[in-house]
Amino acid sequence: MTASHATPAHPDALTYEQAGVNYDQVDPIKLLAQQSAKATAASLVRHGLSEIVASRGESAYVLDAGPFYLASIVECLGTKILVADAVYRETGKSYYAAIAQDTIAMAVNDLITVGATPLIVQAYWAAGGSDWFADKKRASDLIAGWKAACDTCGVSWGGGETPALAGVVEGGTIDLGASCVGLVQPKSRLSLGDNLAAGDAIVLLASSGIHANGVSLARKLAERLPNGYQSDVGDGQPFGEALLAPTILYAPVTEALAKAGVTINYCVNVTGHGWRKLLRHTRDLTYRIHTVPPVPAVLSYMQREAKLDNAEAYGTLNMGAGFAFFVKSEQAEQTVAIAKACGIEAWVAGRVEAGSKQVIIEPIGVTYGTDDLKLR
Amino acid sequence: MTASHATPAHPDALTYEQAGVNYDQVDPIKLLAQQSAKATAASLVRHGLSEIVASRGESAYVLDAGPFYLASIVECLGTKILVADAVYRETGKSYYAAIAQDTIAMAVNDLITVGATPLIVQAYWAAGGSDWFADKKRASDLIAGWKAACDTCGVSWGGGETPALAGVVEGGTIDLGASCVGLVQPKSRLSLGDNLAAGDAIVLLASSGIHANGVSLARKLAERLPNGYQSDVGDGQPFGEALLAPTILYAPVTEALAKAGVTINYCVNVTGHGWRKLLRHTRDLTYRIHTVPPVPAVLSYMQREAKLDNAEAYGTLNMGAGFAFFVKSEQAEQTVAIAKACGIEAWVAGRVEAGSKQVIIEPIGVTYGTDDLKLR
Repeated sequence: MTASHATPAHPDALTYEQAGVNYDQVDPIKLLAQQSAKATAASLVRHGLSEIVASRGESAYVLDAGPFYLASIVECLGTKILVADAVYRETGKSYYAAIAQDTIAMAVNDLITVGATPLIVQAYWAAGGSDWFADKKRASDLIAGWKAACDTCGVSWGGGETPALAGVVEGGTIDLGASCVGLVQPKSRLSLGDNLAAGDAIVLLASSGIHANGVSLARKLAERLPNGYQSDVGDGQPFGEALLAPTILYAPVTEALAKAGVTINYCVNVTGHGWRKLLRHTRDLTYRIHTVPPVPAVLSYMQREAKLDNAEAYGTLNMGAGFAFFVKSEQAEQTVAIAKACGIEAWVAGRVEAGSKQVIIEPIGVTYGTDDLKLR
Repeated sequence: MTASHATPAHPDALTYEQAGVNYDQVDPIKLLAQQSAKATAASLVRHGLSEIVASRGESAYVLDAGPFYLASIVECLGTKILVADAVYRETGKSYYAAIAQDTIAMAVNDLITVGATPLIVQAYWAAGGSDWFADKKRASDLIAGWKAACDTCGVSWGGGETPALAGVVEGGTIDLGASCVGLVQPKSRLSLGDNLAAGDAIVLLASSGIHANGVSLARKLAERLPNGYQSDVGDGQPFGEALLAPTILYAPVTEALAKAGVTINYCVNVTGHGWRKLLRHTRDLTYRIHTVPPVPAVLSYMQREAKLDNAEAYGTLNMGAGFAFFVKSEQAEQTVAIAKACGIEAWVAGRVEAGSKQVIIEPIGVTYGTDDLKLR
């Protein structure tokens, strides 16, 4: 890595630690939780079932249910809700439909990485008080956005939980999460990376902006800006509203690829840790990127204003790439065409090579190595 | 209903509305959400699948996945965490393992009502800040309790989400939730009440105390008591710690019943709304109760101190009955015996009769009618 997050290149740079996220405090406990979780899989034997061991540490958990695999996940929106709350307070503009789509995207975009067709979404909406739901505009926008996102992904919204949790959730806001269940069917669609190999093409799909990761940094930055969320990001859009562009839902693409017979060897949902996520798979392989997508205005603006060098920016934010497919090189162009047919810009952006585990982003001269991503 | 929650029988009585829970504000939006959710089921057709319509409004959502039914749910612990936090602050005693069991119980005890074998649990642990996990005792107790509860239920802990959400979740606490996925296999185990009929026996299973419902009332009451959570509930136990008896996990009983060939016509997880939950099924039937279980000390204490009459107490709290099975009368005693073999006290407590939709609790002279429970 040409620059680390602990020692920012620019003395005024806003790091993720300064933004209040301390991965060091979370990680040892996360590890203990992962080890304890792993040990519980033994219970499945009594039901005549088994887990797919390789799915632990991946973005969704996979169970072998016999005729097909069963994938499941729970995810949360995180602090992006606070941006929507601030914009609503300052301008009266409701972005709660967008926020609903973000929440579903957090769950569905992770679930599809293992090759699952998402089928059921459950809503987890924990408000700071019953009064959150008394604002009919806000609440009905949330519902409308949730329904529309379910329809886009072809999932049934099964139900959920809408507790009022004063004292646990801050007053005036809401903790949004979603669980998602899907089936990998036929089983050959399982894309845990077993066939990921040197020679594979890396296809990147466009993001719409920040999606829902890197938001703590954006919020910290807004505090520093004289005009806060009203600051023009350069294309006339205020910072707050630009941040609230909803996360792209990639499920229509994975379904279209399956239908077209494209084999996905592996997927990465580019979320926290930005492009360092491309190192997600355990295998020692080199990911060489020759093309980077255009950077959404809101992310260029953030990079400039937070004084992040390229290594910091691409290591934290999606920088225009929201999702990555690893496919056989002969199916790369078809993958791009199918994504475009789904209305999502895409690029054959690089290739997988034999070599040590690293991501080399040639156009910007940045390399991330194994020390830069510890997710397991 | 002999007394409503809007007009408490005793002038000093502590109602649920006074405790900060306003169902009126939540319900119209809940209804809109339910209608919107229902409309999304049409998407399943494109996958060649369909939902079990009758599962909407029940405690878990059921999909017909072909060879078996797939059930899923997301649930949260709610404000019981604040009791654990208070006791930890006041005494240094950690009840975070108990709280973990409560959270899993909220999800698993609901999931099993439809006849599903719970298979996968995902953890949703949203902390008010990264520092929540820096207290190793608290965090490792949470993990240990979570793992133990998974082992008791025979589920695999698939993974989860442990975000630090300063600004969304209150500092110093954590929003705990769980999603659960299970299979109904064979399909004949589906217990959505199609065969619920006059003549069925009602078997009640013991609760361990308050479980995780009615906690807002308990917290409000603690504020009124001179010794707060340190008040003796009558058996030497301090109120706070008595409240933290973990919710009983009923999954071993449903699995044992299935193994023994007992057919469960319907189940009710007695949570919010107390015994009014016995009215859950849509059918017009009368539920006549001739035996009430012994009331745990903590609940007798709450009833007395909050000055609740029996209609209020049984309509809000579980009063010693945490779960109900509706079975053919000839299998009632066997159901009790199997629950006891699982270490859970149980009683043949009543019967289902033809008649208007009501619960008649004879030993205490309380009747609840259809106006008393609007969950759909």
